[in-house]
Amino acid sequence: MSVTPAVDAGHDPRTGERRAGLAHTTPDELAAILDRAVQAAPVVAGTAPATRAAWLDAVADGLEAHADELVAIADAETALGSPRLPGELAKAAAQARFYGSVAAEGSFVDARIDTAGGPAGVDLRRARRPVGPVAVFGASNFPFGFGVAGHDTCSALAAGCPVVVKAHPAHPELSGRLAQVVADALTSAGAPEGAFALVVGFDSGLALVDADQVAAVGFTGSQTGGMALVERAAARPRPIPVYAEMGTVNPAVVTRAGAAGRAEDIACGFVESFTLGAGQFCTKPGLLLVPAGSEIGARVADLVAERDGAHALTQGIAAAYATGRSDLEAAGARVLADGRTPGAGNAVQAVLAQVDAKALTPGSRLLEECFGPLALVVEYASDDQRDQLLTTLQPSLAAAVASGGEGDTEVACVVELLSHQVGRVVVDGWPTGVAGTWAQHHGGPWPATSRPDATSVGAAALDRFTRPVAYQDVPASALPPELTDDNPWGLPRRMDGRLQQSGDSDSDGGGGSRGGAA
Amino acid sequence: MSVTPAVDAGHDPRTGERRAGLAHTTPDELAAILDRAVQAAPVVAGTAPATRAAWLDAVADGLEAHADELVAIADAETALGSPRLPGELAKAAAQARFYGSVAAEGSFVDARIDTAGGPAGVDLRRARRPVGPVAVFGASNFPFGFGVAGHDTCSALAAGCPVVVKAHPAHPELSGRLAQVVADALTSAGAPEGAFALVVGFDSGLALVDADQVAAVGFTGSQTGGMALVERAAARPRPIPVYAEMGTVNPAVVTRAGAAGRAEDIACGFVESFTLGAGQFCTKPGLLLVPAGSEIGARVADLVAERDGAHALTQGIAAAYATGRSDLEAAGARVLADGRTPGAGNAVQAVLAQVDAKALTPGSRLLEECFGPLALVVEYASDDQRDQLLTTLQPSLAAAVASGGEGDTEVACVVELLSHQVGRVVVDGWPTGVAGTWAQHHGGPWPATSRPDATSVGAAALDRFTRPVAYQDVPASALPPELTDDNPWGLPRRMDGRLQQSGDSDSDGGGGSRGGAA
Repeated sequence: MSVTPAVDAGHDPRTGERRAGLAHTTPDELAAILDRAVQAAPVVAGTAPATRAAWLDAVADGLEAHADELVAIADAETALGSPRLPGELAKAAAQARFYGSVAAEGSFVDARIDTAGGPAGVDLRRARRPVGPVAVFGASNFPFGFGVAGHDTCSALAAGCPVVVKAHPAHPELSGRLAQVVADALTSAGAPEGAFALVVGFDSGLALVDADQVAAVGFTGSQTGGMALVERAAARPRPIPVYAEMGTVNPAVVTRAGAAGRAEDIACGFVESFTLGAGQFCTKPGLLLVPAGSEIGARVADLVAERDGAHALTQGIAAAYATGRSDLEAAGARVLADGRTPGAGNAVQAVLAQVDAKALTPGSRLLEECFGPLALVVEYASDDQRDQLLTTLQPSLAAAVASGGEGDTEVACVVELLSHQVGRVVVDGWPTGVAGTWAQHHGGPWPATSRPDATSVGAAALDRFTRPVAYQDVPASALPPELTDDNPWGLPRRMDGRLQQSGDSDSDGGGGSRGGAA
Repeated sequence: MSVTPAVDAGHDPRTGERRAGLAHTTPDELAAILDRAVQAAPVVAGTAPATRAAWLDAVADGLEAHADELVAIADAETALGSPRLPGELAKAAAQARFYGSVAAEGSFVDARIDTAGGPAGVDLRRARRPVGPVAVFGASNFPFGFGVAGHDTCSALAAGCPVVVKAHPAHPELSGRLAQVVADALTSAGAPEGAFALVVGFDSGLALVDADQVAAVGFTGSQTGGMALVERAAARPRPIPVYAEMGTVNPAVVTRAGAAGRAEDIACGFVESFTLGAGQFCTKPGLLLVPAGSEIGARVADLVAERDGAHALTQGIAAAYATGRSDLEAAGARVLADGRTPGAGNAVQAVLAQVDAKALTPGSRLLEECFGPLALVVEYASDDQRDQLLTTLQPSLAAAVASGGEGDTEVACVVELLSHQVGRVVVDGWPTGVAGTWAQHHGGPWPATSRPDATSVGAAALDRFTRPVAYQDVPASALPPELTDDNPWGLPRRMDGRLQQSGDSDSDGGGGSRGGAA
């Protein structure tokens, strides 16, 4: 400890007042944390997935047991209020249990055994094995869902990896308290020391990405932050993967039939979605494509003008939002409506602006995200122009199609085009709200993520923290439990190319049906 | 066509004489090829996997029907001789059929459906979908296995993607002839025009990586070449993944019991493996760790001194081999034995050199690959030193452990350490020889590959050329066939978290047991 320790200081977004801080981790403390993570790695990896599920159940129980306290701290540091924060905490607890159930089900190991009598001619066994200590950088905008005990942390623990979380400077007090709750829960459930730790401070974060002990990085946040970590990790003597989930524009397309028959519904739904949580969602629909002549743009403008303002999470976000608006106006966006402003703290107001379709050219600022409650509306003159726009937009995490309902023949074409640009296509719904279930995919091509095949939500989130290894003619005594003949963990395994279910007698594949609801 | 078209000219490695050339693709020709690939992409993706399997069966038939002609051209351009080249062609045909069988089995789609009544609260459907046109850069050293009709091409077609192959300049005549055989086979089997094409010339290769129409790149070759493509693809306005499989050192570890009981076997096996194909294997074991005092190093030196020389594939490889040897000597390697030299063409001779364990420090040239029939031997003084060395070595595609057989208690520890550094661990065998089956993994952390979770051999090779997409509340008429309720392709699918097999009544998961033997 230095004499005057550096701290991450929290601020109240409603007033701008400074709140309690969290002392930065010193280099010596960080070294000790990494040593413990390395010591814990084989223990966590060698623990049966069903036992790791029990650890995650304990984490969920801990979150729920401290819900009121945690929500109060989160609200003071984020101004996200109720019902958002209690709902997000409940969902985070469900997520923790869900990732445990995915681990226990065992298909994430993707165990495969080719016997020596088969075409391989050797005994060949392959499993996805935990990569080792994972560094997690949570998001400002989801203090529970993508925070200290969020998707990355729980999916990495489920996959069998120790986790070291970097505290987010937007909510230091919450980060510290969450880390205590998680650590206590894991200890009480029997997890080894070193399975989980928190580090604090910008330099600690950089040191984590550089540390030889760290095997992979999970990140949720801005493109600038994510790409900085991607480049830093690629420049290591031993590069490691960074799974960065970054903000995107998330286009919403209104078909002609949708505009003709459901204008009011669509306008209301769009405004609700893009202003949710002060527009601070990575899945915020930031661009609405409407057929020329539609009344939707004007109706959205009316609704925005009546919209109450909100408080951004940080002063930095509020300032970047103001800059983003200026940049968009400089690039040709014309403001149609400004919402109300709360007038204190990190105040932000909803904004709707219009852009000409012809201005949406590759490289234009108009195609990039503006984090906060701002959306652009663009009119398309023809199906061809609509389709051309859809292939010009930057790839995104999600996209929405607002249709005229059953029989709308435009939907199939628009969905197919969008499916090449985004991780998830929603019809007659909005991209905000991401269910953490088996079939979810929260990813997409760059700049949505740094790894187009990875997801940070849903059962496949575990895959990021495992790496396949093949064992050829390795004696049983040197094989990991995933691959020995006795299958002690009861994993589903593919034998000579044919999938066999785990120990239970039913043949439908086992697997939980639990999931964290959207 | 320019008046004097540029060509890739072949050379006879045995004599250095120039052979027939292959004209470079012009920019106009390349543009037309990419247009056709884009046109073909939805057709290939929308074709039932079982039909794509029939296309690949036709490719295999074509290879076999033209085996004598193809092997003769390959031998003239590579000097790899018989039985290697006929064996490699037969294996390439088996591979093509295997990837087709993996496609037909359908688990690579990883289809998942969460019904609206479940925890997602919405109808959520996820499938791995073909990414679109794939650019393939084959290897110099496997003209069939990793060439025009090799692993990347066949796994990409199986996954549902059109393929554009860049002809390798080390075997232009073979590349051209193979491309004709593949194109004819695909056409006769009913594949659309544009499903496959060949381009020629260095500039054409760069243009492929830059082309907006290309969605992913498969590469097999040197670290320099692979990383150049990785960086180029990352600098595109829309970055795309490059799956580069690069050469590595592939350590082999002799345990004390192995050295005591099997010295002669191990010495012979090691020399056979590292000199195979003139040492031009990406899985060549380039470093032998032996216990101090073992006679194995001396015995390997004796065998190397008697070893016939060979011809490198190209003059460039022969020159780089000579430079590599000099660099290693400059870094402290002491040559123990030189093999014989054929004395003409791209002559290379086997070399064994010794290195002190203490010289193997991070960043040393001694830790890097030397492509060709050269190996280093290193003595370890203690188990601690052995283990420390194993964590210092660069990650590799594969590693070998030469043990004392049953009851050798060192094996488990060495296998576990190696499993964190490589893609495949072999016990009492050698890493050269890679079976193309369900349980294979041919990958590993950088510098083995650019993507530590990807494999370029085995059933999981298809995964590289697909990307998950989730569909939320999308009407049946806008869903891809992978996800409609009627399951027209008979895919295994996970319903509400529980795996269900395809249409057939047996419950063991379907799936072929075919595979290309090692």
